[in-house]
Amino acid sequence: VDTNAPWIARAAAEEGVLRAWHTVVGDDLEDLVAAFRAAGERSDLVVVTGGLGPTADDHTREAAAKAAGCELQTDPELLEAIQVRFRERGRTMHAGNERQALIPEDATATPNPLGTAPGFRMRIGAATFFFLSGVPREMEVMFEAWVRPALREARGEVEGAYRVLSTFGRAEAWVNERISDLLARRDVSVGLTAIHGRIRVTIQVVGPDAARIAEEVEAEARRRLGDVVLEEPTLEESVGGLLLARGLTLGIAESCTGGLVGKLLTDVPGISAAFAGSLVTYANEAKIAVLGVPPDLLAEEGAVSEPVARAMAEGARRVLGTDLAVAVTGVAGPSGGTAEKPVGLVWFALAAPDGTEATSRRFPGDRVMVRGFSANTALGLVRRWLLR
Amino acid sequence: VDTNAPWIARAAAEEGVLRAWHTVVGDDLEDLVAAFRAAGERSDLVVVTGGLGPTADDHTREAAAKAAGCELQTDPELLEAIQVRFRERGRTMHAGNERQALIPEDATATPNPLGTAPGFRMRIGAATFFFLSGVPREMEVMFEAWVRPALREARGEVEGAYRVLSTFGRAEAWVNERISDLLARRDVSVGLTAIHGRIRVTIQVVGPDAARIAEEVEAEARRRLGDVVLEEPTLEESVGGLLLARGLTLGIAESCTGGLVGKLLTDVPGISAAFAGSLVTYANEAKIAVLGVPPDLLAEEGAVSEPVARAMAEGARRVLGTDLAVAVTGVAGPSGGTAEKPVGLVWFALAAPDGTEATSRRFPGDRVMVRGFSANTALGLVRRWLLR
Repeated sequence: VDTNAPWIARAAAEEGVLRAWHTVVGDDLEDLVAAFRAAGERSDLVVVTGGLGPTADDHTREAAAKAAGCELQTDPELLEAIQVRFRERGRTMHAGNERQALIPEDATATPNPLGTAPGFRMRIGAATFFFLSGVPREMEVMFEAWVRPALREARGEVEGAYRVLSTFGRAEAWVNERISDLLARRDVSVGLTAIHGRIRVTIQVVGPDAARIAEEVEAEARRRLGDVVLEEPTLEESVGGLLLARGLTLGIAESCTGGLVGKLLTDVPGISAAFAGSLVTYANEAKIAVLGVPPDLLAEEGAVSEPVARAMAEGARRVLGTDLAVAVTGVAGPSGGTAEKPVGLVWFALAAPDGTEATSRRFPGDRVMVRGFSANTALGLVRRWLLR
Repeated sequence: VDTNAPWIARAAAEEGVLRAWHTVVGDDLEDLVAAFRAAGERSDLVVVTGGLGPTADDHTREAAAKAAGCELQTDPELLEAIQVRFRERGRTMHAGNERQALIPEDATATPNPLGTAPGFRMRIGAATFFFLSGVPREMEVMFEAWVRPALREARGEVEGAYRVLSTFGRAEAWVNERISDLLARRDVSVGLTAIHGRIRVTIQVVGPDAARIAEEVEAEARRRLGDVVLEEPTLEESVGGLLLARGLTLGIAESCTGGLVGKLLTDVPGISAAFAGSLVTYANEAKIAVLGVPPDLLAEEGAVSEPVARAMAEGARRVLGTDLAVAVTGVAGPSGGTAEKPVGLVWFALAAPDGTEATSRRFPGDRVMVRGFSANTALGLVRRWLLR
């Protein structure tokens, strides 16, 4: 699963590159050479990530040299930088680490400030190629240092603009209907992507007046979509920001999501002032012991029920001493479903100073989808309460 | 972030396809047409996912027809299937849902048993194309029904074999050194991928005796790597399987991972017999109230310390009433680090019937990496205890 490609596509879009190609090739020398040659004919600028490691299945260097028709040679400065790095960390150089100083004759080294795999830039065909580390954080730093300035220079006077709106609380079809005329515009590229109820609207414009047009389209989309548009790029950042702005604290009680709600919220740096914790009570005994859910209630109503969801939320609020607490309990599947409580049925409750509310959903899909929708819905309920 | 492509690459490898290309194109009609034509020249069989939805930015149908030089037409059976589906669910058809019954004239419909977006198969250039839903679960079901049989038929008598070993507990460079001669073999394609300490070794063979050769290489790799080779494809499945096999229960106490350890373990269906819950105590007050960590200990030693990790593990074991409990507390960053306790420092403890042990690590990288390594290390400690 590749997270580099979406990151690079977005960074390129920010610089006005709308029509990008992305090719993935296995660790096969000939396929890499063919891919580099094809990209060198098709594009002005090519970013290659990965394959620069010390192991024998990393063929990127050889393929770059072969595609450009030159040889590999050891770059003495790179070799020294690698040796220094190992010395400073007191580590032994493994066989193969020296290979990381090999770059094509025609290439210029582009140092990697965070790791031992340096990159390089070179021409293949008509395109400028940047070879970067495949480690996401290292790739990002190298991209900002080397690729973004080159993109800006290549763009020259052409204006580009890129905006993103994130929504939660309505289906993709609803969002699509509200802005279908914007999606059909020829002068603006508007796209929708949806995952587990999170819908992103991207607005890309290239050409004269790009910034103004993008701003207008964004304002119109915001007007049409109303408060399903999130305050921040992600649902968890929106919830975190609203909690911090209002000086309120949140606790969580989870069952079927197993910790996913807390994990998402703690993806947000600096959330500790608002987030107390999440009590993941997977077993019924844990619901009783940790959250104080009455055993009779569990026996009579079952763990996936409105009263248990309410008791879980109120228990988490009491134990964690928070202003708000949200609870999730459901049947994630694949087993455990019954006619009355099918796979995908999930109960939610939100305990707040003004009382406790509960709601249920029936989500489609497999375990991953049910858990993803469930965690997002729990965060969405907290956001709704904070916005009212 | 695309999970379909790795799934398809693996399924293709299982059928003996070693040299696969993967191209990603934006929602641009001309780019899609160009990509389909290029793939039609390069490959025998092409799988396309996504772009079959009801929204106006889904151009896959039009691009397929254009690449093949034919028109789109409504397939009456598909239209009826879509209408029936909406009727059964009591939902209103949105404008655009009827578009999902449009397929190229030359194409044959391939129904989607799980969703409203049907697929189709057709010839473009020299290749057979399968157009499948982009929703992972739907794509998988359609792949198994339509694509895998076609792959088998295309392969004919050529034998193919694919094996995967997963490891945890040693660095990629260590694994690489142990099996470097296997990685260099010409008759077998052996690859390594690593993420947050989880290293996968893939073994692919095509040709006469593929199954026997793959088995031999796998056995040799297992012998060299010893017990860092996991019992199951993933670390969480290995821990879950060992717990269930030994009839033991596990509880978790998390701080910096925010719920990620519990989330990973509950990715495993059927884990409820072994997993009681995870007490995510992000705030110090929660560590005191939920886990019974002494306030003096937190004040004197700090939350990221050996004694607090021990107290967290013992608290979780007591509160949840489990055989084992593992605790994680660390500095995930980007802020919160000090000279004495830098970003990346994480303490772990495992409380068991035979006593409590503790250990610390200093992980490199950003918040995502520190949290990923931390969660995996916690699971790895449980596995180590279970194996001894």
